[in-house]
Amino acid sequence: MKYHISDTMKTMQGSAIREMFKTMAKPGIISFAGGNPSPLTFPVEEIKEIAQKVLTEMPSLCLQYGITEGYTPLIEQVEARLKKQGIYREGSNTIITTGGQQGLDLAVKSILNPGDTIIVEEPSFIGALNSFRTYGAVLKGVPVEDDGMNLDKLEEILKSDDRVRIIYVIPTFQNPTGITMSLEKRKKLLSLAYQYNVVIFEDNPYGELRFKGENVPTLKSMDTENAVMYFGSFSKILAPGLRLGFTHGIPEIMEKMVVAKQVNDVHTNLLTQVIASEWLKTCDIDAHIAKARELYGHQCELMLSEMDKHFPDFVKYTRPEGGLFIWCTLPEGIDAAGIVKKGVEKNVAFVPGSNFMTDMSKPCNCFRLNYSTMTDDKIIEGIGILAEVLKENL
Amino acid sequence: MKYHISDTMKTMQGSAIREMFKTMAKPGIISFAGGNPSPLTFPVEEIKEIAQKVLTEMPSLCLQYGITEGYTPLIEQVEARLKKQGIYREGSNTIITTGGQQGLDLAVKSILNPGDTIIVEEPSFIGALNSFRTYGAVLKGVPVEDDGMNLDKLEEILKSDDRVRIIYVIPTFQNPTGITMSLEKRKKLLSLAYQYNVVIFEDNPYGELRFKGENVPTLKSMDTENAVMYFGSFSKILAPGLRLGFTHGIPEIMEKMVVAKQVNDVHTNLLTQVIASEWLKTCDIDAHIAKARELYGHQCELMLSEMDKHFPDFVKYTRPEGGLFIWCTLPEGIDAAGIVKKGVEKNVAFVPGSNFMTDMSKPCNCFRLNYSTMTDDKIIEGIGILAEVLKENL
Repeated sequence: MKYHISDTMKTMQGSAIREMFKTMAKPGIISFAGGNPSPLTFPVEEIKEIAQKVLTEMPSLCLQYGITEGYTPLIEQVEARLKKQGIYREGSNTIITTGGQQGLDLAVKSILNPGDTIIVEEPSFIGALNSFRTYGAVLKGVPVEDDGMNLDKLEEILKSDDRVRIIYVIPTFQNPTGITMSLEKRKKLLSLAYQYNVVIFEDNPYGELRFKGENVPTLKSMDTENAVMYFGSFSKILAPGLRLGFTHGIPEIMEKMVVAKQVNDVHTNLLTQVIASEWLKTCDIDAHIAKARELYGHQCELMLSEMDKHFPDFVKYTRPEGGLFIWCTLPEGIDAAGIVKKGVEKNVAFVPGSNFMTDMSKPCNCFRLNYSTMTDDKIIEGIGILAEVLKENL
Repeated sequence: MKYHISDTMKTMQGSAIREMFKTMAKPGIISFAGGNPSPLTFPVEEIKEIAQKVLTEMPSLCLQYGITEGYTPLIEQVEARLKKQGIYREGSNTIITTGGQQGLDLAVKSILNPGDTIIVEEPSFIGALNSFRTYGAVLKGVPVEDDGMNLDKLEEILKSDDRVRIIYVIPTFQNPTGITMSLEKRKKLLSLAYQYNVVIFEDNPYGELRFKGENVPTLKSMDTENAVMYFGSFSKILAPGLRLGFTHGIPEIMEKMVVAKQVNDVHTNLLTQVIASEWLKTCDIDAHIAKARELYGHQCELMLSEMDKHFPDFVKYTRPEGGLFIWCTLPEGIDAAGIVKKGVEKNVAFVPGSNFMTDMSKPCNCFRLNYSTMTDDKIIEGIGILAEVLKENL
């Protein structure tokens, strides 16, 4: 047998990060490579109690087929929360997805023809970029500056390319940079999207994890023309293993997403939807998130202060006010991949910047650090080792 | 804003069955329309106990991100069961999917270019047909006979169309007909697939629900050339709300499916994967399935005997040996859609045959009955009403 592979999947490889993780799976390695939330933030006892309750009170509901759009009470709770946060827009719909990732994947499937363009922040989240690639997207990167995407570069592309269909951004505590787009740029970005008739994908899995500074309104909260598809997730505020996310956006596109979801996984896991719904109803989600914020704020501050103490001056890095990541930049011309290799040899893992780029084959002088999963001791030890590696190899 | 919709999604509508269900959602309606397993078969107490156990013993595992391919112990258990059933093939891989549906969806995404052909049984499962449509498949239907797909018609298409990439079949207790493909036809089908270098999708969600007759080996169990992608599901033997299925198949295709899954939902819900794994480990799945078989056997026999007693002679129907469905055929030229409408007026719901066809716009003289969710009283009452409707309207 000779097997046919579709043109769009032919060139797709598994995430390089994922492959790298395999080489990094050394016992006792200090890992700043992942993007996992801290298991300390999982409300285990609450989930355990709620699982008992819902399986006792409504077993058939938890275990039978359900509606593609999602469990209705959970949709209503998500919308109530979006209203409280000022994100909800009249005229937008909400569906529950199997993690935030599925929302992105179904939305791009609903909109994009192969050869159409998606503008992305450079660097950006590899899971989104790879999803877009599987639908034949032409990815055009726009550099991320300290206050977010360079909007002049963005407009240049919008002017010259009439096949731009989507602008994909993580405006708040961006993955991988930790950068938050300024209010001014957000407003300008919206007006450019309206002017050029391009839909914005606002991916906001980290938005609630602010541990410092002032809240900046989401794009969706200021979206007067219904140009924004807003993607949320329970992965970082409840638990990723439950695979729960949601999309709040444009009805014309949501309608197609529901059809695409129906043939993709019929509906999102009901047991965990019902658990999440009960959790939102009976537990104090704001107090819960406050604890997660405090933890991540502490971890980030510790990592930054160790980096300040030990890193050589030629390493520049972001100082995030929330989220899970710090982005480090080495002098021009240095390929961070070599540093990562040396780091793993010395038992410290992190991710080279090339993984987050539209062209992953080009050398990149940046790398990403995650601070959410290691203990204080390991953060101190790991940053010390990494500082030595940087000094020895540059 | 003017919204762009992708060419493949532009023509997609929500499942007509689903829309119909809304009009059928009358209080007290007797529904033979769904395809749900009976909630009586859900092992609620076991799941409840296991949920406590796994959330106590391994909370982080249940709640953290996991591996795209699936929870390793569950993969091993699925493979062990496939081995016991003779279905497992050396040289094939296994992944856990978010329901059986996701396996189909990812596999076709991995293989198909828009404009490629998929041969399907006619009638067939609308969820699969719609998934294929969203990837731009040209669907060519081959009539289902009493012993399965007409293989002469199949070969005609294979001979004349060099873009056939997939033959999609539900060989055992087919949805919607309840028909099982004969061993002879299965062997011939395999040899045709080898000869024309076409991959077979063997969808087998009902295979374990045999309540009568002799077991017929799956295509995969006889697949010497690795041409068969085998799709299994926990929906009908454990519970659909958990969204658990698996694919066992060709490594070259599975590898792309894993990449597609990673950008689709990252991984399948871990809480329910761990619950299913623990259930397989500690509970007697064979005894459990035996009870489901007994229930469905009883319900099917009751429905058939009521149909035998009350249906007018001109209605022909299948006599399934397993699964969830009976397929009824009216005289040529009658459109079953009219009968369905009359049925709903009299409080009995079922699905017109056109929904299961490659061309859904054509009138169809068939309809599908499901017997798994109604009580004995309702089956007797509903078939009585339906018999009256048939007599009055033909």
